[in-house]
Parts: sequence; C-alpha cells; structure tokens
Amino acid sequence: MTEARTTTKDRAIEEAPPFFGARFSLYPMTDRYIPVILDAIKGLRDTGLEVETDDVSTFVGGDRDRVFGELTRVFAAAARTGEHVVMTVLLSHGCPGETYCESTGEIRMPAQSARDGAKTGIAVSAQWSLYPLGSDGYMDLIYREIERTKKAGVFAKGAHFVSGLRGDLSEVLGAIGASFDAACADAGHVVAHATLSANSPTEKPS
Amino acid sequence: MTEARTTTKDRAIEEAPPFFGARFSLYPMTDRYIPVILDAIKGLRDTGLEVETDDVSTFVGGDRDRVFGELTRVFAAAARTGEHVVMTVLLSHGCPGETYCESTGEIRMPAQSARDGAKTGIAVSAQWSLYPLGSDGYMDLIYREIERTKKAGVFAKGAHFVSGLRGDLSEVLGAIGASFDAACADAGHVVAHATLSANSPTEKPS
Repeated sequence: MTEARTTTKDRAIEEAPPFFGARFSLYPMTDRYIPVILDAIKGLRDTGLEVETDDVSTFVGGDRDRVFGELTRVFAAAARTGEHVVMTVLLSHGCPGETYCESTGEIRMPAQSARDGAKTGIAVSAQWSLYPLGSDGYMDLIYREIERTKKAGVFAKGAHFVSGLRGDLSEVLGAIGASFDAACADAGHVVAHATLSANSPTEKPS
Repeated sequence: MTEARTTTKDRAIEEAPPFFGARFSLYPMTDRYIPVILDAIKGLRDTGLEVETDDVSTFVGGDRDRVFGELTRVFAAAARTGEHVVMTVLLSHGCPGETYCESTGEIRMPAQSARDGAKTGIAVSAQWSLYPLGSDGYMDLIYREIERTKKAGVFAKGAHFVSGLRGDLSEVLGAIGASFDAACADAGHVVAHATLSANSPTEKPS
C-alpha cells in the first residue's frame, strides 16, 4: 500500500517538478557583440524550453539538464569566436513567490542528472555563490557544496562572497549544477549566481 | 524606523559596522573594453576603500555610502563613453562565513544613508534580486522591498527571479541601496545582485 502510494507520489513529482529556471546574459567585449550574441543563442527558441528575452537578460525554464545543456552550448558558441566573453547566470529552484515564480517552496529533489559533461575545450574562470533560502542551516549547506566543487577539481580560491572556479566549461558548469542539485535536496528554495569568463586578457588567478 | 534613538549602542555600531562590501564587474561591449574599464575605475584605489581585483570581478569594502558612490561614479564614467555597458553588482551585509567574510550574522542596522542621489543624466535599465538569508520570513521582506522600489518610482516590471527597474542611474542604485539597507534591519545576512545596463540597442522594456 505504502509502496503504491509512494510510486504515485513519485510519478506526480516527476510530472510536476518544482519550478526551475535560469536567467542568463552574454557579454561579448567586442564591437561585434550583437552578431556574437545572436549566433550563440540561435536555436534556443526551437528547443521546446520556455524562453523569454528582455533588454537585460534571457529566461530559460524547463528540464534542468536541457537548460544546463543550452547554457553550455550558448557560452561555448560565444567563446569559440575567440572574443573575451562573459556569461552571468542566475539559477533558481522552488521559488515560492506568486508574481515571480510558481512553486510551493516544499523540498523536492530534482530528478537525477543526465548531464554528460563531455569537455568543450573551452577554459573558463568563474565565480559563483549559492543561496539556500528560508533555512537556518544555510551556511553549512554552502560550505558542503563548496567542498563538492573542491572534490570535482574545479575550485580555485575563496574570496569575499564568492568561490572562484577554473576548468573546462562543462566541468565548471557541471560542478555548479551538481552543487545546486544537492542543495535542492536540503532547501525548498535555492538560488545560485555564477559569472563565467573566457578568453580574458587578465592572467591573474581568480 | 529607529534613527532618532542615538544611544551608546548605536554609537558602538557605528564604530564597528557589520561587514559590508560589493563585488562588481564592468562589461563594455566594445573592442575598446580595456581602456573603458581602466578609465572608469581610475582613482578607485585612492579612495581609502578596500579594493581587490581579480580576473572576474572587483571587491570594494568599507563605508556603504562611499561604496555606493564609487559604484555610481564607475558606471557613469563607463556609460558616458556612449558604448553599451553593463555592470553587475553583488552586495553583501553581515556574511557570517569565516573564510569568506568576517562578521557575525547578528542583526545590526547600517548607519543612516547619506547618499545624495543627484541625477547623473544616465538612463539605466536594471534587474535586481534580494536574498535575506537564514530567515523564514524572507519572502515577506522581499515583497516589502519590491514595494519600496515602486514607491521610489523606478520599478518597471516583475519577471522570473528578478525585478526590472528603470530610471536615472543614481535613482536606480539609490533604490536598490535603500531596499538593501532596509532589509538589513530585519535579517543579519543580506545579499543582493543587480545588473545595470546603459546605451543598449534593445528598446524593449525590461
């Protein structure tokens, strides 16, 4: 009986996952920034994901593995131009707001990730921060997830308010995604912000 | 508000304010991005504020009014080149982390703001989000502070995960600062992220 109920409940969770989405912006530091952006986001609207663009950023909602796949693809395309490009990403899971999001804040784990993590050949320097909201023990969760990026081999250095990461684009976004998913197991509403940089003329470690 | 009560306690708070700082990045979408950035941040190290630069962002710590003043000055200088420029800003107050920050998480109001808010003549479109950490009632605090930006006349529109703001640079940064300060009265650890854009070729409202 309990088994049957669990199965139905699990199925319901799979059918109606907690609201997840990303908001990203792409900054190519070149006079050609418009074609670089347009070429990079080409096809995004044909993915079946929810896409909303405004003058500051682009929202992409839907299956998290596909969202991460698109973030990787878009940034890789922009970075392959050889220009210095930066992408900022806001990730959000389970936002309980009414006007701003649709979910309930209840703790529900995302389905297991199917991200493949094949290397892109693009070296990135990144900074990210994780915000588990509405929870007393959020600092422990943050430290645990910083540890996870160390085990993944992409942690470069801690700094005020952020962690610096370095590695192949797919490793860095993969580590951020793995930490984000793990935090969602312990907090109903989780937000992360990340800044990814490629082809920077600055050689100093982040 | 409790500004009228100037007590020994308040004076002690002024002497040892909670750890506050900002981390910003400037993205001029032009081949000339290096001189635009270097010209904009000129003088930042002579302000007496704590400044740390790496390959992804710049940390500025110290008196919050002076930090806001520098953020305004830096972005105004970059925008006055006429190039499409974006600045991202992470604000943090009272982070209780050890490696990453220095304060205690205890709720301590910042001193009253002395920001003058003189208009810069620079029209910006912005998106921001506020994260009061470690508190159950954080969504109420977020809604209250979004209301404050509406009263300030800079709120443009709500979107997934962010609020869109529009107005003169000093009005927009002033509204973000006022909301941030007010949130610090009710949460020991508050983070905000903002993206400011000027001279964008995209005319769509944010």
